[in-house]
Amino acid sequence: MTTTAETTQADVDRIVGTAAAAAPAWGALTPAARAEALGAVADALDAAGPELVGLAAEETHLPEARLKGELFRTTFQLRLFGEVLTEGSYLDARIDHADADWPMGARPDLRRVNEPLGPVVVFAASNFPFAFSVAGGDTASALAAGCPVILKAHPGHPRLSARTGEIVVEALRGAGAPDGVFAVVFGQDAGTAALEHPAVRAGAFTGSIGGGRALFDIASARPEPIPFYGEMGSVNPTFVTPAAAAARPDEIVTGFVGSFTMGVGQFCTKPGLLFVPAAAGLADRLAAASLPAAAPMLNDRLHGGYVERLAELRDHAAVRVLAEGADPAGSPTSPTVLATTAEQFRGAVDELAAECFGPTALVIEYDDAAELPALAELLEGQLTATVQGSEDDDVADLVDALAGKAGRVLWNGWPTGVSVTHAQQHGGPYPATTAPGTTSVGTAAISRFLRPVAYQDMPERFLPAALRENNPLGVPRRVDGVLEV
Amino acid sequence: MTTTAETTQADVDRIVGTAAAAAPAWGALTPAARAEALGAVADALDAAGPELVGLAAEETHLPEARLKGELFRTTFQLRLFGEVLTEGSYLDARIDHADADWPMGARPDLRRVNEPLGPVVVFAASNFPFAFSVAGGDTASALAAGCPVILKAHPGHPRLSARTGEIVVEALRGAGAPDGVFAVVFGQDAGTAALEHPAVRAGAFTGSIGGGRALFDIASARPEPIPFYGEMGSVNPTFVTPAAAAARPDEIVTGFVGSFTMGVGQFCTKPGLLFVPAAAGLADRLAAASLPAAAPMLNDRLHGGYVERLAELRDHAAVRVLAEGADPAGSPTSPTVLATTAEQFRGAVDELAAECFGPTALVIEYDDAAELPALAELLEGQLTATVQGSEDDDVADLVDALAGKAGRVLWNGWPTGVSVTHAQQHGGPYPATTAPGTTSVGTAAISRFLRPVAYQDMPERFLPAALRENNPLGVPRRVDGVLEV
Repeated sequence: MTTTAETTQADVDRIVGTAAAAAPAWGALTPAARAEALGAVADALDAAGPELVGLAAEETHLPEARLKGELFRTTFQLRLFGEVLTEGSYLDARIDHADADWPMGARPDLRRVNEPLGPVVVFAASNFPFAFSVAGGDTASALAAGCPVILKAHPGHPRLSARTGEIVVEALRGAGAPDGVFAVVFGQDAGTAALEHPAVRAGAFTGSIGGGRALFDIASARPEPIPFYGEMGSVNPTFVTPAAAAARPDEIVTGFVGSFTMGVGQFCTKPGLLFVPAAAGLADRLAAASLPAAAPMLNDRLHGGYVERLAELRDHAAVRVLAEGADPAGSPTSPTVLATTAEQFRGAVDELAAECFGPTALVIEYDDAAELPALAELLEGQLTATVQGSEDDDVADLVDALAGKAGRVLWNGWPTGVSVTHAQQHGGPYPATTAPGTTSVGTAAISRFLRPVAYQDMPERFLPAALRENNPLGVPRRVDGVLEV
Repeated sequence: MTTTAETTQADVDRIVGTAAAAAPAWGALTPAARAEALGAVADALDAAGPELVGLAAEETHLPEARLKGELFRTTFQLRLFGEVLTEGSYLDARIDHADADWPMGARPDLRRVNEPLGPVVVFAASNFPFAFSVAGGDTASALAAGCPVILKAHPGHPRLSARTGEIVVEALRGAGAPDGVFAVVFGQDAGTAALEHPAVRAGAFTGSIGGGRALFDIASARPEPIPFYGEMGSVNPTFVTPAAAAARPDEIVTGFVGSFTMGVGQFCTKPGLLFVPAAAGLADRLAAASLPAAAPMLNDRLHGGYVERLAELRDHAAVRVLAEGADPAGSPTSPTVLATTAEQFRGAVDELAAECFGPTALVIEYDDAAELPALAELLEGQLTATVQGSEDDDVADLVDALAGKAGRVLWNGWPTGVSVTHAQQHGGPYPATTAPGTTSVGTAAISRFLRPVAYQDMPERFLPAALRENNPLGVPRRVDGVLEV
């Protein structure tokens, strides 16, 4: 029987010690061998799909179709990182041959490549029991980078976490990975102890601002501080131009309702703020829109937080209720649409623009589209920001303002739904994340777990394969300043 | 007359405000236009060379030839970042076209590019009054990235800092840069106030572990934490194999003495630890070696710190004095060589392996070369680590251990002298730096001041130039997963 009991401090020490011992061998595997191991994990998860989806459904209240899709996303992601490994750009290999005529003075032979950071602690999320949990994006990218992973399970789905962990461990072992390259720990104290362990070299997290910040502070206050990649809160503002409101009012109302209520509003990319022209009557349409039925949230703690935050918003003097479901105060949870004006919003940004995790959004009616860039400037860092516009809109200033605030800027789309691709960016300035230069979704996520090492005048036999003269791995390299593919 | 008076809080607010206002325009310049502005700064510094070198010599006690070389390095570096800008790989531009058949589900059009972080505070170093100071590598890479720079002058060379700052400001203005894109502030309080200012988006620092950690803590404890790139301490261990000691004893002794006494031992890459085989007699040769004459350090504060730290080492029960100059306790400062054994070193690593900034090094005699990887594992993070070996040495384990500890691993060289190239890596795990994934020297230094932004289904007219379909900047891009040069 799989245990989900809290991991003791002694067990955390043992697990991190084993991970640290496994790190050199895991990092020294060829990228192709690590890709194969990730593929074996994906295959094993796919094979266990019915069992895992069943466990997830029991523990999270999420519908089966959604869970099946999320498991598919998870195994796709593991295989995609395998492709990243074999392609090799992630190594950022650079060779500068010795050059007596280098303008600033003769230079030695210098060769630089990305190497794994070392053991990483990953804190799993509640809202994606597969894709941002045990075998999710943080785990996949850290393992791909060559780093062992200590996975702190989310208490919202402990049995699923334990079982997924068993499958991952077994698949890695079968693929020849060293023992200890992956382990699951349970309990907040165990997560903190792992993050504080001197052998751990980075942390990654998906969850609330409060939780992420507390862990970031622990990581930063260590005797040896370590990078901490927290993906946290976002209200994902959407700006509707007057032309778009006039041309596509129904489409915008339908799309917005669908996006902010998707997954019972429990996505970090839920559009929580909708800026609409006051004159266009979108608020009236929203008031009359048909909202989806009430549905249970992931767990009681989240539901309690939602009810509390929603009450704060509803009770705010600047806010009126535009539409609400039949059962606004109880559980399960009904979608709610609130409204205010741009003028009132400006006077209470801190209170009104804070995230409300659940199926609620705030509509802000503005008078003049020229205000929009300044309204955008009032907001904190965001994962996403969206413009609903029309072909003739000149909103370059708004797009620029949003690019300064968010990791992803959308045009005529909705931010929920984060495709896993090479050009994806799921990140943004604080408090969207604690590391604005990074992404937690997409192939670039691997960079978080790497550090460059340069070798000076090093004999071939001691060089990492990617830096040997004849390029045995066939990876893209920058040679004497020129990128060679 | 140029002022070097402490900058008031009100002036810091004004300067940061102006920098933040300048950020969009500076970031929106084409890379080629920013390259031209950096070139104009380099030209103006070159033209002012005699005046600047004269000021530097007065304030730092460094010889003229060294200062001229350092100024050349500085202007070379500015121009090299210009080449980085026009080449364009730093943008990491990625385009994933919309794809209905993307395996995890239809994907939208996603395009991702690196954009400037925003205003950066740079804390200048004492020991490189040009190359790690006002117009040094941090400034050059931040300006290249499109970030305004608030430069906190080092108190060791205030007049030089003020004058260099004037020249930079004037050259940038002449090149069409917006006002406020660069400014110099004076005084520790001003530096702290700038780092705490909400409009500042990153910090960079070169100096002591104590100073860097204090600033890192401030940056991390802000309501909105920001990345802080501290390049701090390192003892740059060098390991001499028995075969090398037997084959090249004089060359090793001469090279070591030259490297640890270079610039009066005031380089962050000074080799502070030399591991030698006890049986080879290198200690005796070092005891008899001719050490350079005593020379003044950069300033009284550094000299005081050196005398204090040297006394601690000399008084340590495990340490004996191998060689010393004529005037070990007074000023100017004489080179000193200390010695201990591997066994004693293991018992007192914290005390013996801490940096001593100045012309002192500790020789550690070992009995068995098989101990070397384990000795390397005892050390903290390093900027560099070196092996002095011979053709037949099998030291793969030692090289691997050192790659896990240091940003740059050298073979048969000496770590002082850090060439500015594409493959250079000047960084390393804490306490060498506060950001192990980054470098402060070489063209990759620009990455510290960038953050990716993805655009989803964005019309061409709102896209950054690097992401437009016809690639008007002609930069390397990853298109649908394939790197195109």
